[in-house]
Amino acid sequence: MPVDLQAPNPQDLLPVAGVRIGTTMAGIRKPGRRDLSVWLLDEGAAVGGVFTQNRYCAAPVQVCREHLQDSSIRALLINTGNANAGTGADGLARARRSCTALAAKLNVAPQQVLPFSTGVIMETLPVERIEAGLDAAVSAAAPTQWFEAAQAIMTTDTLPKAASRQLQIEGRTVTLTGIAKGAGMIRPNMATMLGFIATDACVAPALMNALAREAADASFNRITVDGDTSTNDSFVVIATQRAGHTPITALDSAAAQALRAALNELAVQLAQAIVRDGEGATKFIRVQVDGGRDEAECRLAAYAIAHSPLVKTAFFASDPNLGRILAAVGYAGIADLDQNRIEMHLGEVHVVTAGGRHPEYVEAEAAEVMAGSDVLVRVNLNRGVASTTVWTCDFSEEYVRINADYRS
Amino acid sequence: MPVDLQAPNPQDLLPVAGVRIGTTMAGIRKPGRRDLSVWLLDEGAAVGGVFTQNRYCAAPVQVCREHLQDSSIRALLINTGNANAGTGADGLARARRSCTALAAKLNVAPQQVLPFSTGVIMETLPVERIEAGLDAAVSAAAPTQWFEAAQAIMTTDTLPKAASRQLQIEGRTVTLTGIAKGAGMIRPNMATMLGFIATDACVAPALMNALAREAADASFNRITVDGDTSTNDSFVVIATQRAGHTPITALDSAAAQALRAALNELAVQLAQAIVRDGEGATKFIRVQVDGGRDEAECRLAAYAIAHSPLVKTAFFASDPNLGRILAAVGYAGIADLDQNRIEMHLGEVHVVTAGGRHPEYVEAEAAEVMAGSDVLVRVNLNRGVASTTVWTCDFSEEYVRINADYRS
Repeated sequence: MPVDLQAPNPQDLLPVAGVRIGTTMAGIRKPGRRDLSVWLLDEGAAVGGVFTQNRYCAAPVQVCREHLQDSSIRALLINTGNANAGTGADGLARARRSCTALAAKLNVAPQQVLPFSTGVIMETLPVERIEAGLDAAVSAAAPTQWFEAAQAIMTTDTLPKAASRQLQIEGRTVTLTGIAKGAGMIRPNMATMLGFIATDACVAPALMNALAREAADASFNRITVDGDTSTNDSFVVIATQRAGHTPITALDSAAAQALRAALNELAVQLAQAIVRDGEGATKFIRVQVDGGRDEAECRLAAYAIAHSPLVKTAFFASDPNLGRILAAVGYAGIADLDQNRIEMHLGEVHVVTAGGRHPEYVEAEAAEVMAGSDVLVRVNLNRGVASTTVWTCDFSEEYVRINADYRS
Repeated sequence: MPVDLQAPNPQDLLPVAGVRIGTTMAGIRKPGRRDLSVWLLDEGAAVGGVFTQNRYCAAPVQVCREHLQDSSIRALLINTGNANAGTGADGLARARRSCTALAAKLNVAPQQVLPFSTGVIMETLPVERIEAGLDAAVSAAAPTQWFEAAQAIMTTDTLPKAASRQLQIEGRTVTLTGIAKGAGMIRPNMATMLGFIATDACVAPALMNALAREAADASFNRITVDGDTSTNDSFVVIATQRAGHTPITALDSAAAQALRAALNELAVQLAQAIVRDGEGATKFIRVQVDGGRDEAECRLAAYAIAHSPLVKTAFFASDPNLGRILAAVGYAGIADLDQNRIEMHLGEVHVVTAGGRHPEYVEAEAAEVMAGSDVLVRVNLNRGVASTTVWTCDFSEEYVRINADYRS
C-alpha cells in the first residue's frame, strides 16, 4: 500500500508544447499490459540525462550514452517487462535494432532515438514485439497522454507517478511535466530506475546535462528502498524551447534559477513518490543528518540508517528500538567519529544526548511518533555544519513476498 | 529454522585444562533464562581478542580493549539480554563496576576481568542483577560447562553453537573448544557478536592477538546475515599453556601451523553455524568470487551479492532471478569492472558467460540447485587471480517477523 500517495489526476498533467506521447500494449512480457511508449519530440528539443553508475549497466543505458553525445534527439522509446540488462552483445544489438525501427518510421536517424527498458534482468529483449507495436504507439501519440505514459512504465509500482509545475519567465508561462517509475531495486546512484521530465522552457543544449544532474542529486539520488542500485537507472530532462522567453544560457541567471527550482521540486516530488510506493512500504521516513564535516559523511550516516534492515523492520513494527539507529551510524564508515557527541531526535522527541539515552527520554513518546505514516529521524554528529536528507521507507514482510514472487 | 545445523552433543564438548565456566539465571532482561556466565582462567593463560570496528562500540568492548593492553586475564564475565551499548558514560561505569564486583570475589584486580554484553542496545545495564548473580555463577564453575556456556550467550539464536577439536603437538594432545552466538545484526567487521575459543596449547602471549585476528579473518569476517555490524562484536582466544609441549613462540613453526589450522577450522565451523542459524534463514549460501585483481575487490563483489535483499529474497523463493546477482556485482564499487568478462555459475550450472546469459543455460537446472539447502554461487571477474568466499543465508518473511518483534 503506498504511503500517503494517490494516483495523479489525468487532467492535472499539463501538456508540454513540442512533446507527444503514444503508448500501446505490445505484450513484451505479459499480454494486456500497457508496456510500450514512444515520445516524439519536435525538432530543436534539447535533452540531458544522467544514468546508473552500476558497472553492469543495461544495453539501453549504453546506447543512450552514445546517442546523447552528438545527436539532436527526436524520440524516446521505452519498454517495461524486460530490462535488457545482463544480455551481453546480443542485448546491445537488440537495443540498437529497436532504435533503427522507430527511426525508420519517423524518418530520422537511429542516433536520434533514446531507448529505455525496465523489468526483469538477464532475459532476451523481444525486439520483434517492440517492432510490431511501434505503429500503434506512434499513431496514438498526442500531447495529452502523460497519465498513460506514467502507466506504461510501471513494473511493481502500484500507482502511476506524474506531476506538473508552472512558472513565469519574462511574463511567459513555462510548463514542466514529469513521470517516474520504481518501487524496488531502488538505491539510485544517478537517477531513479526511470524518470522523465519535459519542459517547454528555452534552454541552451549545453546546460541540459547539468540541469539533469542537479535535479537528480536533489531528488532521485537521495532515496532508497532496498539499497539495490539498478542496472537501468535513467533520468532525462527535455527542454522543447517553445515557451517564447529569451533562451537561458547560464545557470546563474534569474530565469535559470527559477527554472532550476521548479525542476528540482518536481524531481523531488517524483522521487518521494517512488519511496511512498516502495515495495511493501507502510511508512515514509525522512532521515536528516546534521553536524557533519561535509555532506559526504552525512550521506554515509543517512544511508547506513536508511539501508539497515534492522532499522527498517523496527519502523515497520513502530517499535522504538532506536539503538539500531546508533549502531548504523557507528558502522557508516566515518573514520574518526566520536560516539559521545551524537544527538538523536525522533520527530520532536529527544532520544539521545552525548551518545547515550537522554535522561528525560520516554519510550512511549517515540512509539507515538513511529506510529505515524511520515516519520522524521534527525541525527546530529556535532562535528561540523554540513547536512543532508535521505528519504526511505520501512521494511515489511510484504517486501519479501513481492520480491520472492516478482517473476511469477 | 536453522539450516543443516543441530545443537552440539554436550559430551562432545571437551574440557580445556585451566578453564572453568559457571552460568546462572540472573534475570537480566527476563526471568528464567540462563543469561550470566563467568569464565575462570588459571594463572598464566594468554588471551588475544579482536573487536567490532563499529565506531559506536559498546561499553564492554571499550573496557575489554583497555584490560587486554597490559593485564594477565583471570576471568571473563558475559551477560545476555542487554548490550550496554549506546549508554554513554553511565554504561562505561556500569561495565567497570561489574568487573570490580567479580574481581573482588576472585581476589584479582578489576583489570584482570574482561566484560562482554549482548542484547538490546541503548538500555541501562542492570548491573545490580549481575552482582546478585555472581555467587551462583562462580560456585557453578566447572570444566564441563561448555554446553551451558553456549546456551548462556544466546539471544535470537535458536540453537547453542559450540564445537571442539584436538590435535597432536610433540606427541601431546592439544584441545580447543569454542562457542559463539549471533543470528541477526551480523556483518562482523572484526568478529562475531560473541565468540570464544579456549585451548590448552602453550603459546607466547605476544602471539595471541595475531592468532585471534587470523582466525576471525578466516571465519567471522566472512559471514553476513543482514549487513548490520554489531556494536558488541567480540572474539577472544585463550591459551591456558597446560598441554605440556614446548611453547610456541613463532607463527611459522610446524606446531604453530598445526594449531592455527585447527583454530581456524573451529572458528569457521562456529561462524558458519551463526549463518545457518541466521534469523529466518532457510538456506545456507556460499558466495565465491574468483578472478579479482586483489582479495579486497573480490570481497566487495561477494558482500554486495550477500547483502542484496533482492538476491536474498530470490534465494528464499528458489527463483533463479539471477540477473539480481549481476546487478549486485555491478554496483559493488569495483571502479573499472568490465561487465563483458563476467562469468557466473550456480552450483555446476553455467549461467552467465561474457557478461550475458550462457547459450545453453536452462532455468530449470538453476531452480533445482536453488531448491537445495546449501547453495554455491560462483562469480568470476576474469581480471586477476585473487579469490574470496563469503557465507550468508537467504532473506525470508520470518526475518522481518523476528526483527519487528524482537523486543516484545
